[in-house]
Amino acid sequence: MEIIRSKDNETFKFLKKLKTKKYRDSENLFLAEGVKFLDFNIEPQMILINEEIDIDVKLEERLAKFNCRKILLDYKLFSQITSQENSQGVIIVYKSRLNLECELDDNIVVLNKISDPGNMGTIIRVADAAGFKDIIVTKGSVDCYNEKTVRSSMGSILSMNIHYIDEKDLLTYLKKKNYKLIATALEKDSIPYTSMKLENKNAIIFGNEGNGIEKEIIEACEEKIIIPIYGSAESLNVAMASGIVLYEVRNKLNK
Amino acid sequence: MEIIRSKDNETFKFLKKLKTKKYRDSENLFLAEGVKFLDFNIEPQMILINEEIDIDVKLEERLAKFNCRKILLDYKLFSQITSQENSQGVIIVYKSRLNLECELDDNIVVLNKISDPGNMGTIIRVADAAGFKDIIVTKGSVDCYNEKTVRSSMGSILSMNIHYIDEKDLLTYLKKKNYKLIATALEKDSIPYTSMKLENKNAIIFGNEGNGIEKEIIEACEEKIIIPIYGSAESLNVAMASGIVLYEVRNKLNK
Repeated sequence: MEIIRSKDNETFKFLKKLKTKKYRDSENLFLAEGVKFLDFNIEPQMILINEEIDIDVKLEERLAKFNCRKILLDYKLFSQITSQENSQGVIIVYKSRLNLECELDDNIVVLNKISDPGNMGTIIRVADAAGFKDIIVTKGSVDCYNEKTVRSSMGSILSMNIHYIDEKDLLTYLKKKNYKLIATALEKDSIPYTSMKLENKNAIIFGNEGNGIEKEIIEACEEKIIIPIYGSAESLNVAMASGIVLYEVRNKLNK
Repeated sequence: MEIIRSKDNETFKFLKKLKTKKYRDSENLFLAEGVKFLDFNIEPQMILINEEIDIDVKLEERLAKFNCRKILLDYKLFSQITSQENSQGVIIVYKSRLNLECELDDNIVVLNKISDPGNMGTIIRVADAAGFKDIIVTKGSVDCYNEKTVRSSMGSILSMNIHYIDEKDLLTYLKKKNYKLIATALEKDSIPYTSMKLENKNAIIFGNEGNGIEKEIIEACEEKIIIPIYGSAESLNVAMASGIVLYEVRNKLNK
């Protein structure tokens, strides 16, 4: 296995830059941390291992599955790449799955300016669990390849198709593709989410943690839904709300 | 307003001890941080304010609603009590609502060894939102008055009834009170959560993040339910699962 011990090494300098969104975007790569990711059958671009960790038989087997470049990093260099306090010593570099030129599924999720990386990851995970394949994210939302998002997605970031789009192009695109637009938003004419009516193609839209969905988008939606609050809680977190709504959509589609 | 500037002050020493579970238990008090809590109409035991923050008219009005002791704390002392990096400078001491001698609701939530304080708080919040009033927590679970739990509950900790019980007494209690026991657990005979059958009284049970519900409890359950996973995600977080299941219970009860 290759070893890097100098901070002047070109590969190391390259890897360090992947911690910034700008560089991730231009290189189409992102970092995922933790041995768990080695369980997915997705070929990485590179695997980085902290030189100080004990590579046991189990880890060796997991590493052997992949043909990519594997690099041992001096622990001081590794500590400049890791984003975790108690790192397991394994970071994987993957190609991003962004803006794919594919036809989107009939039922999609739209995220409008989600700002918390943990929420973004949790929504990606529950959308995956509920059987959705495509998520459109409006620009200005948190980067879905933020390290915390990748971690909270628990691997679902590797299988979901994520499409970034300019807010101004979103409505044109969805209308052209004949999606019914369903917004989760507290509006005068919002109906309980259990009463939503699905069409052949549906886009379920969730908005920013504090400000909700942009006004212009809400106004273009055919249906606005809310999750009724029965107790004294004021609201639900957007990730929780997305799980409840997306599973309801799935249950309706299954009927 | 009273001011405390010495670390030898008896009240300050008392407050500091409330950061430990042991002391919270013996004193039946807990700490909740953030001005948001002042919006709830629940009389605190005490309100602590960082001497360095600017008490504007709005905050003054909020404080004036309550008759309890209000204490300005020297910022160094305050920093020993706060659990937040960017504290708003307000900490409220409340009486805990534990093991109340009341009759429990017909539909209750049971938490068996939940270990993450954030999950515990999120479950309390979504259970409240879905209209549940009582949560039984088996001993050995994380303390529901842990500062992180209080924060994640977003105030719902103030209105939910939380009952701690020894694991060995749980089944006897639930059977005696004629609850149907429904476990969320991946078992051979688990059915999709949408197919669960509710009786007059139902106890919905959620287990530990890693190990699930204790075997003895699962075996005593009349029904085991799962949330089907349609995509490539391996599982759902227990807090997310509880939100999806508890809202399904509420929707069934509303029918």
